[in-house]
Amino acid sequence: MYKVYGDIRSGNCYKIKLLMSLLDIEHEWIHIDVTAHQTRSDEFMAKNPNAKIPVMEIEPGVHLWESNAILNFLAEGTPYLPVECLMRARVLQWQFFEQYSHEPFIAVARFIAKYLGLPESRRQEYLSKQEGGYKALRVMEGQLEKTACLAGDQYTIADISLYAYTHVAHEGGFDLSPYPAIKRWLARIASQPKHVTIDQFF
Amino acid sequence: MYKVYGDIRSGNCYKIKLLMSLLDIEHEWIHIDVTAHQTRSDEFMAKNPNAKIPVMEIEPGVHLWESNAILNFLAEGTPYLPVECLMRARVLQWQFFEQYSHEPFIAVARFIAKYLGLPESRRQEYLSKQEGGYKALRVMEGQLEKTACLAGDQYTIADISLYAYTHVAHEGGFDLSPYPAIKRWLARIASQPKHVTIDQFF
Repeated sequence: MYKVYGDIRSGNCYKIKLLMSLLDIEHEWIHIDVTAHQTRSDEFMAKNPNAKIPVMEIEPGVHLWESNAILNFLAEGTPYLPVECLMRARVLQWQFFEQYSHEPFIAVARFIAKYLGLPESRRQEYLSKQEGGYKALRVMEGQLEKTACLAGDQYTIADISLYAYTHVAHEGGFDLSPYPAIKRWLARIASQPKHVTIDQFF
Repeated sequence: MYKVYGDIRSGNCYKIKLLMSLLDIEHEWIHIDVTAHQTRSDEFMAKNPNAKIPVMEIEPGVHLWESNAILNFLAEGTPYLPVECLMRARVLQWQFFEQYSHEPFIAVARFIAKYLGLPESRRQEYLSKQEGGYKALRVMEGQLEKTACLAGDQYTIADISLYAYTHVAHEGGFDLSPYPAIKRWLARIASQPKHVTIDQFF
């Protein structure tokens, strides 16, 4: 059985939880508290030398890290990861977009506000995340005006990757009301059978 | 024939040039100057609404963006992208590591120094990139002490993704001399048949 090391409040970890629910994948969840620096222990860094969650243990001693790489591994051979080459690349395109142009703004703003309580020492950094976050939302809105899901009309792991932090973007101070296509997409994702919410585990 | 929109001085664009050379893929290169804001034109943003290079035109009107997604598309069915599921995920793990934990430090420091001439107004940002960049190099060094390449002993697109900015890290102020495994790996990559250097095009 897979073991997942993560904190379910983290969108990057929730991605794994959501896909595992959709695919009925049994697993053991081991809670790691990043705010208590548990990712920096020698024991944890033997699993992921980059000291980040989530990490998945595939078998004893074999660990995979980076949330989107884990999604690709788990989704192989399922409808959440198409087989056609350009569609696969399109899924990756949105996943790399998520990690470079979305997560560093929206997830980090949320972390500062929700985990750290928006301390005065980080207010400037928090505010600096707004512009990039809204830029990412505009890019998503443009795509979702054209297609039901990000990589086309099929629900894929690209949607899981971007759903994770977009649906809690308000916790980072982002107002989604100017983005009706994103709001419709969020509602469609949330209405899928076997969907789980980020807050039902903590 | 594929068209690639990019600036060859950019490591993200060089990744595509290098793989296309290794695979003998004919293409047309269209130079885009980011410092002249050419990625923000309406014409360019119709190709990539995220306003970043590289972008590859697969056929007229069909564009793929995100450098690592393009690498995956081009490498499918070649030795640079294994078919086995865990190996593929391992390649992706390193590519996501590159975009989140390596590029935002090493490539951005290099951009500030090499493209912008390290203006006083960005010196603090430049210095702030050092810690994260060295952390990424330590993670790579740990892996390359164990295996010849990042995803194992086979040269894959994970190596291309991380070679792109690591081999010019000194241009961002990074000293590679404490990382002998990285230096051996860089030399091995550079000695492969059909290798091209980043500076032979400009």
